[in-house]
Amino acid sequence: MSLLVVGSVAIDNVETPLERRDNVLGGSATHFSIAASFFTGVRLVGVVGDDWPQQHTELLNGRGIDTSGLQIVPGGKTFTWTGRYEPNMNDRETLDVQLNVFGEFDPKLPESYRSAKYVFLANGVPGVQSKVLEQVPGRRLVVADTMDLWINIMRADLDALLKNLDGLVLNDSEAKLLTGSQNLVAAGRAVQRMGPKFVVIKKGEHGAMFFGEHETYVLPAYPTERVVDPTGAGDTFAGGMMGYLTEQDSFDAETLKTAMAYGIVAASFNVEGFGTERMQQLNREDIEKRMGDYRKMLSF
Amino acid sequence: MSLLVVGSVAIDNVETPLERRDNVLGGSATHFSIAASFFTGVRLVGVVGDDWPQQHTELLNGRGIDTSGLQIVPGGKTFTWTGRYEPNMNDRETLDVQLNVFGEFDPKLPESYRSAKYVFLANGVPGVQSKVLEQVPGRRLVVADTMDLWINIMRADLDALLKNLDGLVLNDSEAKLLTGSQNLVAAGRAVQRMGPKFVVIKKGEHGAMFFGEHETYVLPAYPTERVVDPTGAGDTFAGGMMGYLTEQDSFDAETLKTAMAYGIVAASFNVEGFGTERMQQLNREDIEKRMGDYRKMLSF
Repeated sequence: MSLLVVGSVAIDNVETPLERRDNVLGGSATHFSIAASFFTGVRLVGVVGDDWPQQHTELLNGRGIDTSGLQIVPGGKTFTWTGRYEPNMNDRETLDVQLNVFGEFDPKLPESYRSAKYVFLANGVPGVQSKVLEQVPGRRLVVADTMDLWINIMRADLDALLKNLDGLVLNDSEAKLLTGSQNLVAAGRAVQRMGPKFVVIKKGEHGAMFFGEHETYVLPAYPTERVVDPTGAGDTFAGGMMGYLTEQDSFDAETLKTAMAYGIVAASFNVEGFGTERMQQLNREDIEKRMGDYRKMLSF
Repeated sequence: MSLLVVGSVAIDNVETPLERRDNVLGGSATHFSIAASFFTGVRLVGVVGDDWPQQHTELLNGRGIDTSGLQIVPGGKTFTWTGRYEPNMNDRETLDVQLNVFGEFDPKLPESYRSAKYVFLANGVPGVQSKVLEQVPGRRLVVADTMDLWINIMRADLDALLKNLDGLVLNDSEAKLLTGSQNLVAAGRAVQRMGPKFVVIKKGEHGAMFFGEHETYVLPAYPTERVVDPTGAGDTFAGGMMGYLTEQDSFDAETLKTAMAYGIVAASFNVEGFGTERMQQLNREDIEKRMGDYRKMLSF
């Protein structure tokens, strides 16, 4: 099976109450791919400038991530995000964004990618997300992420995209913004009525909610005391979830719930290090071990 | 087995974005008792004025709640709380508090109560909570609740109380205030080091966390779209939890986790009506049915 992800590839500068780290490997497609790579091969589509360190590409390739869709723009600069986390490690302030080559991102899928069955459209301009879909005629499951910016300024494009999705992943404040509802259960159901067959609302340290055709459920986050850098946790969640679905080649109700749990477990590791550092230290066994702990935590 | 609760008995005036309701039966000991009454007999200790409607006492007695410890002060007025909920139904503003007879509350336990094995000290002045303990020599399990006010102004008394508790139940913002930690896992462990053998952090719509000697876990709230009035949800949670522990006459790790789940399920019903209205409509079967749904929600 094959999993395709389209999204940002970035260099982050991250400041937490304890430490500041510059030039950290980041971006939605990067975090997603690394999490998914524990389960399946991944085909990444993104764009970087020629300042992009070759070692990052090697790191991705070494994990079975196909980067033939990672366009390098000569003379361009890679997307950079600089942010600072509040002491609660949930709220953050964006100090600087340099879209650079990502601002003109017009994804063209290599021929070898077009047969992908599982597709994740990481957060990006909704019109561009829609254009990717046309290039994957054999798609079986399409899940997208979005953000407040597109809800506010590109609502019509987002509405059009929503009608073509199997699943939408978004965070709690975005779900409230998109629907005008303050109750997350009502918000999740309202988003579902906009098109996606299922909706996942990410609640950060409080876990995630699922709204499907026949069921609504909530799974808590795996509790960790060691929160070093939450950047990319949402994309890591999506990567774990989509990676597992691709591996199983199924997205029935039961498989979707287990996939959510893998996403939550993957995200719980991601926050334990800067950027993708903690994820790079893991193997599948580590994930399975924490998954076992997580299942045990939820049984009584 | 016998469960003793000491706490407030009140008349609430509640304003939500949809409705305002006056003279609603409220108070921590009231919500607690009604939730616990699905599992066990309850002995209530509290104080009211002679404005207290006799029908409320009859309601409690009809549920197997012993009110011989409910003192009626002649010429006194019952504690009244008036509050308004924000549109998110989580945040609320206290518009008025009339402590009245509760301000001079000095609980004296009837002789028949002193053999109680399971004790819940609902939110109250820590010094008064401690004085109750001396009157229950045969106590086997003592759990208390507290609030920001006592953390801020009666810290020494609270610290003394904490050393004598088996369990402490408090909400997330209170746990952060008590410990100075912004991470709830770290906060929960820090509270545990202050004395209680176990700590439960209530997270409202996000469920509850447990910190015991050997384990830490999180259980999500049962998702409900029908949030009418969250007043008393925390006390209802504690009542469901303590009621089940009393019924089982056990508080080993496994029983505690199941008890947490019953507390969460009870609280999910409580928010579906004003005051105790929804709880009054239920029977044990309704609770077991939702408990089954909750177990199913958490299995994958």
